[in-house]
Amino acid sequence: ATVSDSGHEVEVTTSVKPIYMVSDGTGWTVEHSVNAALGQFEHCLVDRVCPVNTHLFSGIDDVERLMEIIKQAAKEGAMLVYTLADPYMAESAKQACKLWGMPSTDILGPITESIAAHLGVSPSGLPRGASGRNFPLSDEYFRRIEAVEFTIKQDDGALPQNLCKADIVLTGVSRTGKTPLSIYLAQKGYKVANVPIVKGVALPKGLFEVDPEKVFGLTINPLVLQTIRKARAKSLGFSKEARSNYSEMDYVRQELEFARRVFAQNPVWPVIEVTEKAIEETAAVILRLYHDRKHKCSMPGISKRY
Amino acid sequence: ATVSDSGHEVEVTTSVKPIYMVSDGTGWTVEHSVNAALGQFEHCLVDRVCPVNTHLFSGIDDVERLMEIIKQAAKEGAMLVYTLADPYMAESAKQACKLWGMPSTDILGPITESIAAHLGVSPSGLPRGASGRNFPLSDEYFRRIEAVEFTIKQDDGALPQNLCKADIVLTGVSRTGKTPLSIYLAQKGYKVANVPIVKGVALPKGLFEVDPEKVFGLTINPLVLQTIRKARAKSLGFSKEARSNYSEMDYVRQELEFARRVFAQNPVWPVIEVTEKAIEETAAVILRLYHDRKHKCSMPGISKRY
Ligand SMILES: Nc1ncnc2c1ncn2[C@@H]1O[C@H](COP(=O)(O)O)[C@@H](O)[C@H]1O
Ligand SMILES: Nc1ncnc2c1ncn2[C@@H]1O[C@H](COP(=O)(O)O)[C@@H](O)[C@H]1O
Ligand SMILES: [Mg+2]
Ligand SMILES: [Mg+2]
Repeated sequence: ATVSDSGHEVEVTTSVKPIYMVSDGTGWTVEHSVNAALGQFEHCLVDRVCPVNTHLFSGIDDVERLMEIIKQAAKEGAMLVYTLADPYMAESAKQACKLWGMPSTDILGPITESIAAHLGVSPSGLPRGASGRNFPLSDEYFRRIEAVEFTIKQDDGALPQNLCKADIVLTGVSRTGKTPLSIYLAQKGYKVANVPIVKGVALPKGLFEVDPEKVFGLTINPLVLQTIRKARAKSLGFSKEARSNYSEMDYVRQELEFARRVFAQNPVWPVIEVTEKAIEETAAVILRLYHDRKHKCSMPGISKRY
Repeated sequence: ATVSDSGHEVEVTTSVKPIYMVSDGTGWTVEHSVNAALGQFEHCLVDRVCPVNTHLFSGIDDVERLMEIIKQAAKEGAMLVYTLADPYMAESAKQACKLWGMPSTDILGPITESIAAHLGVSPSGLPRGASGRNFPLSDEYFRRIEAVEFTIKQDDGALPQNLCKADIVLTGVSRTGKTPLSIYLAQKGYKVANVPIVKGVALPKGLFEVDPEKVFGLTINPLVLQTIRKARAKSLGFSKEARSNYSEMDYVRQELEFARRVFAQNPVWPVIEVTEKAIEETAAVILRLYHDRKHKCSMPGISKRY
């Protein structure tokens, strides 16, 4: 960005690097992969030193629309990243990019080819949602929905009598990310309950009656917690009197100390430091521990059958 | 699987094809990519005709553990799929697989290289979570958490006075997937409210007062809906008397017809057929429509700035 004559900020469009993402499906795979790869350029993306814009086009299942998008991408000096199950579509994308002198990456092709070789089976070449596909009313489908619904009802210490039905129980002081973390895990099919720790408030008896191997404590740096709580109090519009101590440093420290003592009294619970962790990172740590504890004899990891 | 002499089912392990997945981060990217690629083999995975097991190893950031996993993978006749930001780790994985004669695919390397060329910037080579990284207390971080918390509170028609604060409002009869869909969209940063349509029950006034461009109707095939409702009633343990009509075909049809009339009276609301769609597929359709309506002049797609 730079400043024009009139004093207004105008974006120098030539410096913004567009990435076009195309999928015949939802586009979530290509978006996820590009996001991970962009993590490798954080040093340069920060403060938009080298600004990048992404554009996601999902449900692209005919060559005409594909070519329209690629033409537009070429015009803007973009690169193309795609997941196209139909080999003809994928090859068309590749050739068109070559023709327009535009860099391109196929996310689905290489992994599909190598799985095909491994299994000794040819890929279908059919995009998801192609008719004739099996309807996904699988056990897995029902399990996930049930997990999400369970987790929503359990949020914030509600229904402590149901703690025994949870796969995973999270506990920690306010603003350690219990709710978003619970929801993230629920979408992966785990029933999660979360129990807030509040200084001076007794924890529900049930928390100490459930299998301690499924309870996880969350902790956080006091300074960071204060920052988050201040933002929270502001967005909720707490009045100065009511809960004024919620984001005060002394109170924050005392509450974390109270939590630390609860954790010390329950040494089986792993305590996870969430400072500097994104929600999905904390989720990965929890699921790693969860599965390692369940399968003590095999190699640590998360296994699934297809 | 086959039956042994003793009559017990034993798995013929040679026929199960293992896929080992390794990441220095959470492992969600490699898991997501392998999942998408396995979709190309559904014809063969169904009923475990060609059974596949996946094993996910996350947080692998030293060569020793990497080599241990690859050795185990080789022993089991597996293939390896990996995301390793450190070029030395990635190269080690590649060479070790070659040595053991094991197929392998690098998910992160190719896309990172091509983005590097596009931006004219070298990748950091640092895995996520490497110290010295920026703490992710970004606006985006707060926005997502707020969206999840808003959406949970709004679930199932709660707090209709807040419909105006939602980015997206979903409406449809029970078991069209409003709750899991709301949560899925919330995790992407959208504040979602959902309003159930129940035959003979008046809809909240607020639903007709909000911007109709943000309301989405959900509909489903009656037979499929009945199947889902039967499963639901069973898992909730509905007594025969109470709501016995909930999953009766006549009632299901009448309720869907009631919803159809509501939708007909509100022609601006797009009506989305969720039969045969996974949650993430319906989410993709909704977000496509949502963004197209917001940016009527530009190409349809979802854009983001980095
Ligand atoms: N269940 C599935 N069956 C067939 N193809 C799939 C499946 N899931 C994902 N794909 C393909 O994998 C790629 C990424 O999917 P998506 O994340 O929906 O964009 C697309 O080319 C999809 O067509
Ligand atoms: N924010 C980030 N910064 C640096 N690397 C990242 C970031 N996010 C993901 N990655 C890398 O992308 C790959 C996939 O990440 P994950 O999905 O966490 O397994 C791993 O090699 C990570 O180290
Ligand atoms: Mg909470
Ligand atoms: Mg619901």
